[in-house]
Amino acid sequence: MDGNRRYAKKQKLEEGSGHKAGFLALMSLLKYCYELGVKYTTIYAFSIDNFRRRPEEVQYVMDLMLEKIEGLLKEESIVNQFGVRVSFVGNLKLLNEAVRVAAEKVMIATANNTKTRLLICVAYTSSDEIVNAVQESCREKWHGIKALNGMKNDEIQALDGEMSEEYQEKNPGIKLVDLEKNMYMAIAPDPDILIRSSGETRLSNFLLWQATNTLLCCPRALWPEMGLWNLVWAVLKFQRNYSYMEKKKKQL
Amino acid sequence: MDGNRRYAKKQKLEEGSGHKAGFLALMSLLKYCYELGVKYTTIYAFSIDNFRRRPEEVQYVMDLMLEKIEGLLKEESIVNQFGVRVSFVGNLKLLNEAVRVAAEKVMIATANNTKTRLLICVAYTSSDEIVNAVQESCREKWHGIKALNGMKNDEIQALDGEMSEEYQEKNPGIKLVDLEKNMYMAIAPDPDILIRSSGETRLSNFLLWQATNTLLCCPRALWPEMGLWNLVWAVLKFQRNYSYMEKKKKQL
Repeated sequence: MDGNRRYAKKQKLEEGSGHKAGFLALMSLLKYCYELGVKYTTIYAFSIDNFRRRPEEVQYVMDLMLEKIEGLLKEESIVNQFGVRVSFVGNLKLLNEAVRVAAEKVMIATANNTKTRLLICVAYTSSDEIVNAVQESCREKWHGIKALNGMKNDEIQALDGEMSEEYQEKNPGIKLVDLEKNMYMAIAPDPDILIRSSGETRLSNFLLWQATNTLLCCPRALWPEMGLWNLVWAVLKFQRNYSYMEKKKKQL
Repeated sequence: MDGNRRYAKKQKLEEGSGHKAGFLALMSLLKYCYELGVKYTTIYAFSIDNFRRRPEEVQYVMDLMLEKIEGLLKEESIVNQFGVRVSFVGNLKLLNEAVRVAAEKVMIATANNTKTRLLICVAYTSSDEIVNAVQESCREKWHGIKALNGMKNDEIQALDGEMSEEYQEKNPGIKLVDLEKNMYMAIAPDPDILIRSSGETRLSNFLLWQATNTLLCCPRALWPEMGLWNLVWAVLKFQRNYSYMEKKKKQL
């Protein structure tokens, strides 16, 4: 959701107003998505790299985020209106406690909603997601070796060297499926469409692993200027390519 | 280099002619890159997924590739003309022996060229690259543990369980730098610009890990139709964004 600050500058507003206008645009676009029947919507709310911005700006965005996350629990919120299950995706340990607690509350409160899903990437980067998946996979493998044959701890200790040696040779180790399973985004299918605002044609460490076959759209509009037509345009482009892509998948 | 087959269809040529026209376009574009002073050029010649195409087509492309790779060693080739160091990047074990041997020959023959580098991705996908980097990193860590304190093999065997347990707890395991170091593409800096022909705005499993901050350009031209202006356009777009990107990097 790129362009909030540039929007504020362009409109001669203070920086904070750009983020607020961005939030309004987000609410409209989510509504359009739900009306159009989009089952999974993922937003890149805050990157791990964003923590390196000026402390005042980080604080401002965190406060705004806390307010808006708490707002999701209100009766009249978009979440209740459309039956949205909300998940926060990323290295949530990096958030301050208030935001993390609020995020967890929303995930629990919406866990039984089934109509559509909203994934909010916070404290997220793709590289971090991949490294985390690798570490999780290693942990699993390690426990897997230990549990092998249901051995007791002292037996394992004696055999560990040999087993792991054998394991190293016979087993190629972590596989694609292990990584896939341990991605934060494993809770959703790979995206069909990725939209980046402000005419920037970069992924900026967002869903790199998942975007292999994703249609990339980069409308010129700054994020707060994004409207229904930008969304419809992306969907039409996707639809126009759909049968070609399906054919190609079979051909591959 | 997308669009060879579509080009053949459009021009009412047989399929093979599309690939041949594509090779000519590649030679022109490489020349332009070298004239413009591009230091690293990476081409996506053959994806691991492409092995699932019709056997005749795979065979045809492999034969063409063998012929062209061997051609790189000739006196009058672009490689000698511009002092290009050539590297083949990917899971080279998956290539047939003739192609693999030819590729290795070219890498050795050009190893001392320093003016510019050409990286040819064959039998490549990003997911495969990442999984391979994970496996290499695991192997390194494992040997690292074993070498710890220069212990002898039987001592290691007795201690292995304990050490690894301790290691698992104290050490978060594979880190970002381990993966970075073990990527096939670690031999080059991340790309500034990624150009995908045929108006396709998808990455198709190419350099996902490396394309985090890369400018993506998707000209409409089919690959054999790509010319100097498509390249210049991408460079101008990159230059126009350059100071903004540099400022942003500092701001982050």
